[in-house]
Amino acid sequence: MDTPVKITADERLASRFVSDERLWNRHLLLAKIGEIPNNGVCRLALSKEDSAARALVISWARQLQLTCASDPIGNIFLRCEMTGCDPSLAPVVTGSHLDSEPSGGRFDGVFGVLAGLEAVEAIQSSGATVRRPLEIAIWTNEEGSRFQPSYMGSHAFVCPKQLESFLAKRDDRGIRFSAALDETSKNYSVDQSRKLGGRIAAYIEAHIEQGPVLEASRHQIGIVSSIFGFERFEIEVQGEAAHAGTTPRRQRKDALVAAMQIATALYETLVDETDLLRLTIGRMIVEPGSATVVPGRATFTVDIRSSDQTVLDEIPRRVRVITADHAGACSATVHSMSSAPSVSFDPGLREQLARTAANLQYSTMEMPSGAGHDARYLAQICPSAMIFVPSHKGISHNPAEYTAPSDLGNGARVLADVIAGLVMNEKEME
Amino acid sequence: MDTPVKITADERLASRFVSDERLWNRHLLLAKIGEIPNNGVCRLALSKEDSAARALVISWARQLQLTCASDPIGNIFLRCEMTGCDPSLAPVVTGSHLDSEPSGGRFDGVFGVLAGLEAVEAIQSSGATVRRPLEIAIWTNEEGSRFQPSYMGSHAFVCPKQLESFLAKRDDRGIRFSAALDETSKNYSVDQSRKLGGRIAAYIEAHIEQGPVLEASRHQIGIVSSIFGFERFEIEVQGEAAHAGTTPRRQRKDALVAAMQIATALYETLVDETDLLRLTIGRMIVEPGSATVVPGRATFTVDIRSSDQTVLDEIPRRVRVITADHAGACSATVHSMSSAPSVSFDPGLREQLARTAANLQYSTMEMPSGAGHDARYLAQICPSAMIFVPSHKGISHNPAEYTAPSDLGNGARVLADVIAGLVMNEKEME
Repeated sequence: MDTPVKITADERLASRFVSDERLWNRHLLLAKIGEIPNNGVCRLALSKEDSAARALVISWARQLQLTCASDPIGNIFLRCEMTGCDPSLAPVVTGSHLDSEPSGGRFDGVFGVLAGLEAVEAIQSSGATVRRPLEIAIWTNEEGSRFQPSYMGSHAFVCPKQLESFLAKRDDRGIRFSAALDETSKNYSVDQSRKLGGRIAAYIEAHIEQGPVLEASRHQIGIVSSIFGFERFEIEVQGEAAHAGTTPRRQRKDALVAAMQIATALYETLVDETDLLRLTIGRMIVEPGSATVVPGRATFTVDIRSSDQTVLDEIPRRVRVITADHAGACSATVHSMSSAPSVSFDPGLREQLARTAANLQYSTMEMPSGAGHDARYLAQICPSAMIFVPSHKGISHNPAEYTAPSDLGNGARVLADVIAGLVMNEKEME
Repeated sequence: MDTPVKITADERLASRFVSDERLWNRHLLLAKIGEIPNNGVCRLALSKEDSAARALVISWARQLQLTCASDPIGNIFLRCEMTGCDPSLAPVVTGSHLDSEPSGGRFDGVFGVLAGLEAVEAIQSSGATVRRPLEIAIWTNEEGSRFQPSYMGSHAFVCPKQLESFLAKRDDRGIRFSAALDETSKNYSVDQSRKLGGRIAAYIEAHIEQGPVLEASRHQIGIVSSIFGFERFEIEVQGEAAHAGTTPRRQRKDALVAAMQIATALYETLVDETDLLRLTIGRMIVEPGSATVVPGRATFTVDIRSSDQTVLDEIPRRVRVITADHAGACSATVHSMSSAPSVSFDPGLREQLARTAANLQYSTMEMPSGAGHDARYLAQICPSAMIFVPSHKGISHNPAEYTAPSDLGNGARVLADVIAGLVMNEKEME
């Protein structure tokens, strides 16, 4: 007489069915589309490479019997309705984006989409009894390299009144966003069109950290507490160009000297002990830019991020005061370029992520995200959370971006188990 | 019976015959050649504009019976041998240059040539008994905008072994200096060719100050004590580009922050109470130059000038120490770009200039020149000196360059009387 096969609850966990190899190989295959030297990727939003990547992911989704829908901004939703699922319930959504920076890497965005696909396949394989639909979202134009602003897809999803202005944006060559979307969406077929927005039970996005914290502190999983808000400025310092040899220092209005005084004061004043206030001067243009001419003008950007909204609220006033106080003989003007409030993720979902990761025996840490993500917008309409996996040396937006296959797999396992828990839950979560 | 006309020595001074109107109008006529908006001039070395300007000055010189010679680097010498002059004596030479910066003004260089022409005409009109030949030099390519280095004409004159390398220089479009010289020298005729170099009894160059000191201190004439020597460097700071949002300050290698620390330390350390040490950071390139990326590299120039050679001798070592001490988490390399020693002008000639200007009741001051001039090279082979006239607001290398007609006239009057004294002197001065 045969002994009946006993399957434990642990053995039926979706995470057991995540394949590091499949996940890794899909990353490599996608990286072929828009490949640039040194493992880099150039896959600008709504380029033919972007649509080819979408077509490939859609083909993988169809192998899993997922249906494919798109909305007016070009977001793609790969929907899984398993046996026993009630299609009238709000779906659990995961995903990220497939577009890249001009000189990007293989993991930014892509990991969130492929981890979602891996989670779906794992949940299907585990034989779990699901109650809710599960969707993988591919958000349009997260990077904002070709068409500004960033996050158009997720932003329009939660705020449909933005649609019209986004469709009218043009790239550097004058191509309209709507024309690029019409052109490139011919390269893949969808099963249905839907409107922007809709109910979502929960949104979980997996992403590479893009910073050095997890690797440096030897944690496998980051549970994202919040996304930093930011204030971004351009400061324009006007001095007087003069002959380097003939103009005594006391009679100069050296715009670079004034810019450096302002910048130094910003760095000295806007600092916190926890090193969570992020201040970056990334661009500085000095004119006329000759070795033998005292600079007549210097223009620089100031990007300031914090998870503490009360700190951010004070930033514009403080930047203006510091600038005025340190311009010396020059005049300086502060222009606001853009800003966004900080976002806190759902405490319940963060707790579930922590419990799930602990169950899988991964070392975890809660951490804020200094980078923006589509989850910033989803958090406005549904309980949302994010999973981070380590980025080697914190390098991102760069061909050298790297996350080890096992680290990607770990993130997908946490995602699979948490999503499995959510889709088995038919209680209203929204 | 007629009373004989009594002519006093003062009435026979050459300066009495200098015409502010003629001098000013010649500036305006030359400014038509290569005219750009806002009274500017673009007359690059060995351009068709440069040769047209030479042709015009040569035509004025021929009206005064001057002969015209050129040498292998294209320097022009307009020679005046008046009745009673001994052609075997070394000439007194004055002059400057006719080439300009791409966006230059009407006076830089031109004044020295036209003041020379005015001095010759005034001396001729005064009926002075001259013993020495008098020459007006038009030095080739003083500015160094089109062909580097600067001062090719005067440099090759005093150091003929430079000729071959200078003739082989090419401009940005690949045109060889020698080809440009051959082509443009067809636009004017000379009476004779001569070799580089030769004996000179004394060299006096008139020039606009190109700085604000004379105007600010209300002096009419500057007697130039020296030309600053300089040391010029490029400092390259290598950090690590990183995501502005995700990289904590403590983990950054921000190349711009390190560059600003080095620059600030240079400004704080390399300073003197007399404000004669000139330090300029005129060019700074920050890469990759995105508002949201921590700078991975910053490159900046450092131009340091002083009339004190002992100070200059220490500069390379001090710049390297300061750079190494303030690079922080980044690495920084100091590249020497170019340098020149300081030059002191002849005390005897300075004394004659001061006496002459005092006789004309002009307020004078001794001052060093922070800008370089052809006189830097001539001083290596003969007693040399320079006269400065005020530059409005110190603006130069700019269409807004301006010196009032009376200030130009004052400079030409001092030049005329000093040169008259020198050409009347047959004692060997060399």
